[in-house]
Amino acid sequence: MNAFEFWNPVRVVFGVGSIARLRENVPAGPRVLMTYGRGSIKTNGVYAQVKKALAGRDVIEYGGIESNPRYETLMEAVRLARRERAGFLLAVGGGSVVDGTKFIAAAIPFSGDPWDILEKQSPVKEAVAFGCVLTLPATASEMNVFAVISRESTHEKLAFGSPKVFPAFSILDPSVTFTLPDRQIANGVVDAWIHVCEQYLTCLTPSTLQDRQAEAILLTLKEVGPKTLKKPKDLEARSAFMWAATQAHNGHLSAGVVGDWATHLISHEITALYGLDHAQALSAVLPGLWRHQIRRKGPKLAQYAARVFGATGTAAERAKAAIAKTIAFFRSLGMKTRMAEHGIPRSDFGMIADRMASRGRKIGEYGDYKRKDFIEILDACD
Amino acid sequence: MNAFEFWNPVRVVFGVGSIARLRENVPAGPRVLMTYGRGSIKTNGVYAQVKKALAGRDVIEYGGIESNPRYETLMEAVRLARRERAGFLLAVGGGSVVDGTKFIAAAIPFSGDPWDILEKQSPVKEAVAFGCVLTLPATASEMNVFAVISRESTHEKLAFGSPKVFPAFSILDPSVTFTLPDRQIANGVVDAWIHVCEQYLTCLTPSTLQDRQAEAILLTLKEVGPKTLKKPKDLEARSAFMWAATQAHNGHLSAGVVGDWATHLISHEITALYGLDHAQALSAVLPGLWRHQIRRKGPKLAQYAARVFGATGTAAERAKAAIAKTIAFFRSLGMKTRMAEHGIPRSDFGMIADRMASRGRKIGEYGDYKRKDFIEILDACD
Repeated sequence: MNAFEFWNPVRVVFGVGSIARLRENVPAGPRVLMTYGRGSIKTNGVYAQVKKALAGRDVIEYGGIESNPRYETLMEAVRLARRERAGFLLAVGGGSVVDGTKFIAAAIPFSGDPWDILEKQSPVKEAVAFGCVLTLPATASEMNVFAVISRESTHEKLAFGSPKVFPAFSILDPSVTFTLPDRQIANGVVDAWIHVCEQYLTCLTPSTLQDRQAEAILLTLKEVGPKTLKKPKDLEARSAFMWAATQAHNGHLSAGVVGDWATHLISHEITALYGLDHAQALSAVLPGLWRHQIRRKGPKLAQYAARVFGATGTAAERAKAAIAKTIAFFRSLGMKTRMAEHGIPRSDFGMIADRMASRGRKIGEYGDYKRKDFIEILDACD
Repeated sequence: MNAFEFWNPVRVVFGVGSIARLRENVPAGPRVLMTYGRGSIKTNGVYAQVKKALAGRDVIEYGGIESNPRYETLMEAVRLARRERAGFLLAVGGGSVVDGTKFIAAAIPFSGDPWDILEKQSPVKEAVAFGCVLTLPATASEMNVFAVISRESTHEKLAFGSPKVFPAFSILDPSVTFTLPDRQIANGVVDAWIHVCEQYLTCLTPSTLQDRQAEAILLTLKEVGPKTLKKPKDLEARSAFMWAATQAHNGHLSAGVVGDWATHLISHEITALYGLDHAQALSAVLPGLWRHQIRRKGPKLAQYAARVFGATGTAAERAKAAIAKTIAFFRSLGMKTRMAEHGIPRSDFGMIADRMASRGRKIGEYGDYKRKDFIEILDACD
């Protein structure tokens, strides 16, 4: 286990009816800017619940944050917040709205061009406080410091993280997810699954406890993922899914271990270029990355196959089974698992690899991927 | 899963050499009262490391907090802190020192008799901020809001909890545990194990994820507990043990589930009356409590036997195996598992049951134990 620092001060308020508890969690003083997406909260009753909980408060609104939230959109919200002197933000939506709101929170007091927060990783020295009402379990953004933002004009999708953008609180009512389309649930299960894998399937450090904790979440997702798709109103399954997705990327799995995150970084390029859902891109990349890395990730893949899928056989057999069983699981949820299925042409792979290599950052748990590796990985994803 | 609120703002700084990081974590302004136990930190080098990290700071000391920390002792520290205007506390020691320091932190600004915090469960409205340097993995007090305090004059051992007594930070250096006696390591493994069981083996609510997370810690303790006893300087085993003990009782396992805690409450009486180590009392009570509750806890005991010990057979067979295998595991660590082994006479059981019943609180996950039940449980522990 490596040395680490763990700190996660987010207050999670979980349960049916918990949106009413906005009243005590949103500070009474400042003007609140409520941010949301493209209007689903107005049809599923969440908007009404939020407005009721905040009746009498000074609340302004910014709707229209899209999935893969765009810098251009978010800067509109930043200008509104500055003009209207909003002192607290309330994100109501899924990971995109929460990510977008983190960027808004950091950009409002930022001196200089806020794009630097993403492109130059300029440190976030302060941020406007904010809370969340989560409507879509997937990204765990509601309990971590990370956000991924897209820029339409340049087809870029970049991430930033800062302890200044921990949500003050996050309200998780599993019943608000009952009306989500199957596709979003499947995306959420796979997104959470791959968050765990990025922290668990790395093979660099001994991590007895963290491995077991990672497997705890995977075993839960394996059990409740298909169940919650089949019976969307099974409150117990959806509660377990929602809390598992949050725990999948709230810092406790990465304490003391080295992360991979190559699947995410490659997927960000895919989403930026071809507009795929985040999880659709992830599930098209992960199997190929594992095929390419089967030697280095072999021991951990073998452990994962045995403990999560009950695979038997030699370590080499189990490492192969790990990939096959993961693909079968993703496909059982209706996900695609190859780039070709999304119509991404092989002829683009050189260009994608160029973009990856040009980011100038170390990628993967060994930090040693070069352009040639990205080409090979993409070939293995085809 | 029940509705819940989860909030744990403790900053954990983990790793070899992390005591040096006191410098950035202890606030520079206020006078610091450093609290510790009976001097082991002066022989194992921890005291010197702390003093070095805080060189030049305004630090006063209170040593002499005993295991099962006594109200009488702690009030001496409270008077010292008030007189010397200490504005920050630093607990350096194991769970007893941390628990004691929580009480000191709450008692310093308390108006009225601080014993009321324990006996009348008077709310803690404010507390002096404090941090910890942990030297003994066991209680998880370093990452939770609970403390258990004994009063010598009345042979009482009572608990309190308040979000005001979250440590601001806790420093966990696994290498400082290398010199601990085997008995304290075994106590720590069993204490952490039983913390998990109190939250996991209750059978009241569906808890797919929390069960897996509880099992993750138990599987880790089962693997590294014996290993760390055999090779005290195996840094990896001791790191996993230390972090597992902290995670065993930091709130994430109890989120959304109903706790039991009867084993703890009965054990507190045993410790108060006969002076047993906390974990020694726990391991003498748990098996008997499970024998008595085998019908109500049966399904969860069967699950535990299968998932943690690999037991097979019918649910009834596995529930029995759960008890036998737990006893075997505790005994392999050198623990006793019956009250009679500690010389506690059956003739005292009525008196112990009277004390339990007189506490006037609901005990166990169903909150329905009566005097008669305590007698039966104690008989089953004999």
